[in-house]
Amino acid sequence: MHARRLTKSDGRGLVLYARAPLPDTIEAPTPAGETPRPRPELRWHPMRAEWVIVSEHRQGRTYHPDAAANPLAPTLDPQRPTELPAGPWEMAVFENRFPSLVAWDDPSAPLPHDGDAWLQRAPARGVCEVVVYAQEADTSLGALPLERIELLFEVWADRTRVLGAKSFVEYVMPFENRGLEVGATLAHPHGQIYAYGFVPPVVAAELAQQAMHLEATGKGLIADVITHELADGRRVLFDDGTSVAFVPGFARYPYEVWIGPREAVRRADELDARTRASLARALKSVLLRYDGLWGRPFPYVMVLHQAPTDGRPHPEAHFHLEFYPPLRAPDRLKYVAGAELGAGAFTNDSLPETRAAELRAVPIEELAR
Amino acid sequence: MHARRLTKSDGRGLVLYARAPLPDTIEAPTPAGETPRPRPELRWHPMRAEWVIVSEHRQGRTYHPDAAANPLAPTLDPQRPTELPAGPWEMAVFENRFPSLVAWDDPSAPLPHDGDAWLQRAPARGVCEVVVYAQEADTSLGALPLERIELLFEVWADRTRVLGAKSFVEYVMPFENRGLEVGATLAHPHGQIYAYGFVPPVVAAELAQQAMHLEATGKGLIADVITHELADGRRVLFDDGTSVAFVPGFARYPYEVWIGPREAVRRADELDARTRASLARALKSVLLRYDGLWGRPFPYVMVLHQAPTDGRPHPEAHFHLEFYPPLRAPDRLKYVAGAELGAGAFTNDSLPETRAAELRAVPIEELAR
Repeated sequence: MHARRLTKSDGRGLVLYARAPLPDTIEAPTPAGETPRPRPELRWHPMRAEWVIVSEHRQGRTYHPDAAANPLAPTLDPQRPTELPAGPWEMAVFENRFPSLVAWDDPSAPLPHDGDAWLQRAPARGVCEVVVYAQEADTSLGALPLERIELLFEVWADRTRVLGAKSFVEYVMPFENRGLEVGATLAHPHGQIYAYGFVPPVVAAELAQQAMHLEATGKGLIADVITHELADGRRVLFDDGTSVAFVPGFARYPYEVWIGPREAVRRADELDARTRASLARALKSVLLRYDGLWGRPFPYVMVLHQAPTDGRPHPEAHFHLEFYPPLRAPDRLKYVAGAELGAGAFTNDSLPETRAAELRAVPIEELAR
Repeated sequence: MHARRLTKSDGRGLVLYARAPLPDTIEAPTPAGETPRPRPELRWHPMRAEWVIVSEHRQGRTYHPDAAANPLAPTLDPQRPTELPAGPWEMAVFENRFPSLVAWDDPSAPLPHDGDAWLQRAPARGVCEVVVYAQEADTSLGALPLERIELLFEVWADRTRVLGAKSFVEYVMPFENRGLEVGATLAHPHGQIYAYGFVPPVVAAELAQQAMHLEATGKGLIADVITHELADGRRVLFDDGTSVAFVPGFARYPYEVWIGPREAVRRADELDARTRASLARALKSVLLRYDGLWGRPFPYVMVLHQAPTDGRPHPEAHFHLEFYPPLRAPDRLKYVAGAELGAGAFTNDSLPETRAAELRAVPIEELAR
């Protein structure tokens, strides 16, 4: 993989990725308009024991622009720069223009707002990036060739390495919100990366369970889940001996799917080429089944969970992807509402076995090894 | 308050509530069609350490019926029974026809689905109820007179007492999903109650924080938050010396509001008449501000948090309501997506102080004491 690391005129970073070397002449464009200089803050929620990010300038962010104003398309007219240059790049990552986490020039400076002394507050340090999957606005991750999806795993590895090396980053989380149903504001295929200054609470809770399981049994919790899912077999969507995809027996969303290597790998930057190739096949097969299920682009939230970059070893961690699709039928959303938000108790209105069988029955192209 | 406790022909309970005595002649109607006899199960999510409710029959539940088929309207034509009778009732509670939690006739019976031995499963015991706020389909909780809203606090008290007394109920949570944006499938003003066979994870986590605070300081955590919010003042929406309403300084949603008594009361059934009257004023004033903000019915998730009914004393608990409105602008949703669902880290795109000022500026009628 070749990476060209550039800086936009407003100071934001841009990295172009490709299999082939990229020409030296490419420059980083910067869209017109002012780039905000936010100083977001964290506020401590004493009941939930979690940080809330307060990032007020984001209200003005780009919201469903028309195709001519797509900031993720390559720049064709130098008078109307987008976020990305023309050129033979395959994937690109740039710093979000409307980030909810920033590096802070001087994190010891006073917080911007009048504070209440009793409210525990801190600078919201971190990095928010946009990951552009392709130059074409009308494609999708699942429609890309396997080599490109493999490249995405390399991009995630690079970002995990680069962002995780920053002193103020403790956790790197790639994710994708696909579809209007989950609030995607740009149709161009892309994901995001949040590099947090703290290990976020869902991740911390999951790692704690994994650490307890490792301590108690000597085995990884996710590796154990995978062993059991493979033995049962009814919910398995993909298995090539290296990677698996399955609807977990304890799925909270009707079409929830997990993808991961069978053997624990802690982080994206520790995956080897063979495992990346296998994971790319697993990921593409799941995305093809999703889009094939109802013959429409299938909305989802995809999150990547891996080991923190907080300097601790985390032998309990096991790199994997989780999909939370918001639909329970072609025209019906599974709402995350009172019971889920207020109690934390999810209701899955269907059997994971039934949903897995539906996804298994979707005909998809054979994915060559 | 007068309550008439009836049973529908399919075995489901119905309770009618009113200030005045209700005639003996009222009978409980049962809508046409088969009432499912579900046996939902719990499955243990080993990574999040929480139960997932699997309740497959609910896919067929009532979904945006037209007005003529509104199951929450009083029965006018005995040939077309709804869930509710005609008569002088003011509020009504009945068992949900499509519950995700049920009592289970024989909880020691085998679970209905083929199990994987490794998946931890249990009967999903509990009760799901619908709380109908009014006979009229075209009103809303905030539009009801204060006496009716006071009655709702009495209804919540009755349900907490009755449901909490069941051996298999450990937590009673009233809530309301208002508006299409949070998935309400019936427009008729109503809330719900889930009586859980376990203390759900969000509640358990919050109680743990409250217990630690009580242990460390001798004071209640919510009472302390209220003291600080009143001292700061910028985010307070209502204060009559007995109850308060405020946007918490650590709000996760732009228009999040909490309502509660200043002095800790553990549960709805321990509120006295004076406090109920005060809370009704606080609640109505918040709902009027919400609907007045943009001149449209304001969607929200409302949840009631109180002490569990698990037989332990819970001196740390403090009855209160939390509102999670999904909008950040009249036409823009705040999506709960990748960062919130995958990391548990909420971003509030605005300052709680600013949002509180907006709500405070909404002109509302004076609410007589």
